[in-house]
Amino acid sequence: MKELALELTHSVYPHDEIYGEYCTIEEYINCPPEKIFSYLADHYNLAEWTYSLRNFRPNENVPEQIVGNDVIGAHTKIYVKTISNRESMTVDYHCAWDQGEELWMIYLMRVVPAQTVLKKPGSVVLWTNCHHPYYDNNPFSETAPPSRPVWVGDLWPMFYAGHYIEMQNLKHILEYRHNQSKSS
Amino acid sequence: MKELALELTHSVYPHDEIYGEYCTIEEYINCPPEKIFSYLADHYNLAEWTYSLRNFRPNENVPEQIVGNDVIGAHTKIYVKTISNRESMTVDYHCAWDQGEELWMIYLMRVVPAQTVLKKPGSVVLWTNCHHPYYDNNPFSETAPPSRPVWVGDLWPMFYAGHYIEMQNLKHILEYRHNQSKSS
Repeated sequence: MKELALELTHSVYPHDEIYGEYCTIEEYINCPPEKIFSYLADHYNLAEWTYSLRNFRPNENVPEQIVGNDVIGAHTKIYVKTISNRESMTVDYHCAWDQGEELWMIYLMRVVPAQTVLKKPGSVVLWTNCHHPYYDNNPFSETAPPSRPVWVGDLWPMFYAGHYIEMQNLKHILEYRHNQSKSS
Repeated sequence: MKELALELTHSVYPHDEIYGEYCTIEEYINCPPEKIFSYLADHYNLAEWTYSLRNFRPNENVPEQIVGNDVIGAHTKIYVKTISNRESMTVDYHCAWDQGEELWMIYLMRVVPAQTVLKKPGSVVLWTNCHHPYYDNNPFSETAPPSRPVWVGDLWPMFYAGHYIEMQNLKHILEYRHNQSKSS
């Protein structure tokens, strides 16, 4: 076991080994877990803390879906359905560009009380994306707006960086508001 | 945003940056999510797929706890309470060496249907540990067996390797049994 473990432990790891198949971000946020869960579970807030999702409105054809724009892809529409669980504090965004029939981009998030895992107030937020095959091949290319410069999957190698920055947005927003609510 | 993202994206990342504060393992297992959830939710199975946890029995003083041995720490007792949620398929092991009053080593696991995130049968299992301060300083040292050679926190830098190997155990066990059940 010791030999195996030493063999697996490196001083550095290549990007693709860490973020090639799965992209997980973990972050401490100094805000109570229930507040973070409620914020994340309301998917209209995606227009606030993400980099490029905007203009959400109900999808009139599918009651549980909302539709907005991913401005990273010019006039791209993005469809979102959110499945959350208050008890385990998971929030999963099921999304897709261009069409809402098959929501295949899944953002798996979970809020964990920092009191239990780090012995301090606040929360740890976990966020994982998995490398779905449609990132490499878009089977719905006929639904894309003409001459779009980029497919979402072309950006997979930048997901760690992009999600890290969005997680920092989330942290700053939630910590600021929590701090304001304490001092008022 | 592009500059920021490029600055954050490296060809390699140091061990401590990736596994210093949080240690997450993600693994595909070719076995249905419900089977994996049920297997994980029964904490007596920890004696099968982990490297060093053995001999579990009920803790007669605390109904929801079990107590076993972590043979990595010689005659060390380990106390475990498991909180699982069948709907979101989270399974959290709340553990501690030596005493069951404060269970501070939290193993956060989640089973995700691979059909939704990877468009294939089977499951993705996520497993995160957070660097609780007791890994660095044991506040219950008076409860330790005399002259124990190691404290669990001394092993934190090897958690990635150890958990990776245990995840492979879990994968082999579950895939083998699932395969057997299909052919019988």
